[in-house]
Amino acid sequence: MQIAVLLYEGLTSLDAIGPYELLARLPGAETVFVAKEPGPVRNDQRSLGLVADKALADVPHPDIVLVPGGPASREVMGDQEILRWLRTADRTSTWTTSVCTGSLLLGAAGLLEGRRATTHWLAYEELRALGAEPTGERVVFDGKYVTAAGVSSGIDMALHLIGRIAGDEAAQTVQLMVEYDPQPPYDAGSPDKAPAGIVARWRGRDIASVG
Amino acid sequence: MQIAVLLYEGLTSLDAIGPYELLARLPGAETVFVAKEPGPVRNDQRSLGLVADKALADVPHPDIVLVPGGPASREVMGDQEILRWLRTADRTSTWTTSVCTGSLLLGAAGLLEGRRATTHWLAYEELRALGAEPTGERVVFDGKYVTAAGVSSGIDMALHLIGRIAGDEAAQTVQLMVEYDPQPPYDAGSPDKAPAGIVARWRGRDIASVG
Repeated sequence: MQIAVLLYEGLTSLDAIGPYELLARLPGAETVFVAKEPGPVRNDQRSLGLVADKALADVPHPDIVLVPGGPASREVMGDQEILRWLRTADRTSTWTTSVCTGSLLLGAAGLLEGRRATTHWLAYEELRALGAEPTGERVVFDGKYVTAAGVSSGIDMALHLIGRIAGDEAAQTVQLMVEYDPQPPYDAGSPDKAPAGIVARWRGRDIASVG
Repeated sequence: MQIAVLLYEGLTSLDAIGPYELLARLPGAETVFVAKEPGPVRNDQRSLGLVADKALADVPHPDIVLVPGGPASREVMGDQEILRWLRTADRTSTWTTSVCTGSLLLGAAGLLEGRRATTHWLAYEELRALGAEPTGERVVFDGKYVTAAGVSSGIDMALHLIGRIAGDEAAQTVQLMVEYDPQPPYDAGSPDKAPAGIVARWRGRDIASVG
């Protein structure tokens, strides 16, 4: 089972690394980080370089495609080389997945037309404009298309996927080994739960300006 | 405020990237990834390269030191160059922090003597052998020393730290922007909660063999 994680300049690193850390523990999985060209790409914060080992053309038929988001996703939505690769990879993938605004790339590639999907809470309308039906769920399955909400939600998505692919015990084992027993000191992780003043301050801002 | 994230061959990537993603959003923070030499290092799975932009000697006085763990941490415990850097950086740091078996490196550097601390659940005895007092808590504060449990716990640690440094509203804002509203489909993230059979299968294994 080959898992391809798409990298591009300006991605949000946890979108990719959260689910990667769990999915890479799937028995028999081989993970490869891909980009338009092999080599390091910088993240949205510019302080981290992540290395793509392969070019897109080298990995045409992954079993799982994982597309992270980031403030740069709006520009990448117009990158025909990446969109072509997404369409090609999707033709033979078992699972086509995204985290955060990564779903906007899937949508721009025409893969979410009429499908239930999600994205970062600031990008619901952009997702809808691409033909998808945004839901308020954290992880959305629609056939083989699996989309997760903002940044950290990819970890939950990975656990769901491991359960579907390898069974509950495999998923529970991975959860135990990465000690995913969340205990956040605040309960502000969604616009329904965060203090209203904070939500109001961010709502309406362009996703490209907030990361 | 300068945040230094230590990289070394064989680290567990989410140990570093989880808290990095949140801490980098601290107002005024500058984050730098450091290693013995600048350039890419490979993670424990070997499928990911993370780029260190600076050598240890270039970053002698970070305000926050963040030490990730990984199956390679046992070997790194004997790396005098890294231990020396940890001791030097700790002399002037505001916060000295670790995730997972990163605390074994702090312990090997002599920084956790007599302190309450934590680590991956499989490494409590090794942490105790270094003079620390392991607790079952997910995030442990002892003065300026902050240690987190296995892999994913660094995200919770980062929220605690942001709250202490910049206040509750800053922490809640970061939590909302990364949508950290965890909804794992299983409740198996600690040895107290996971199915007993899975825990028994792993307990007693060497941390270096499990990552």
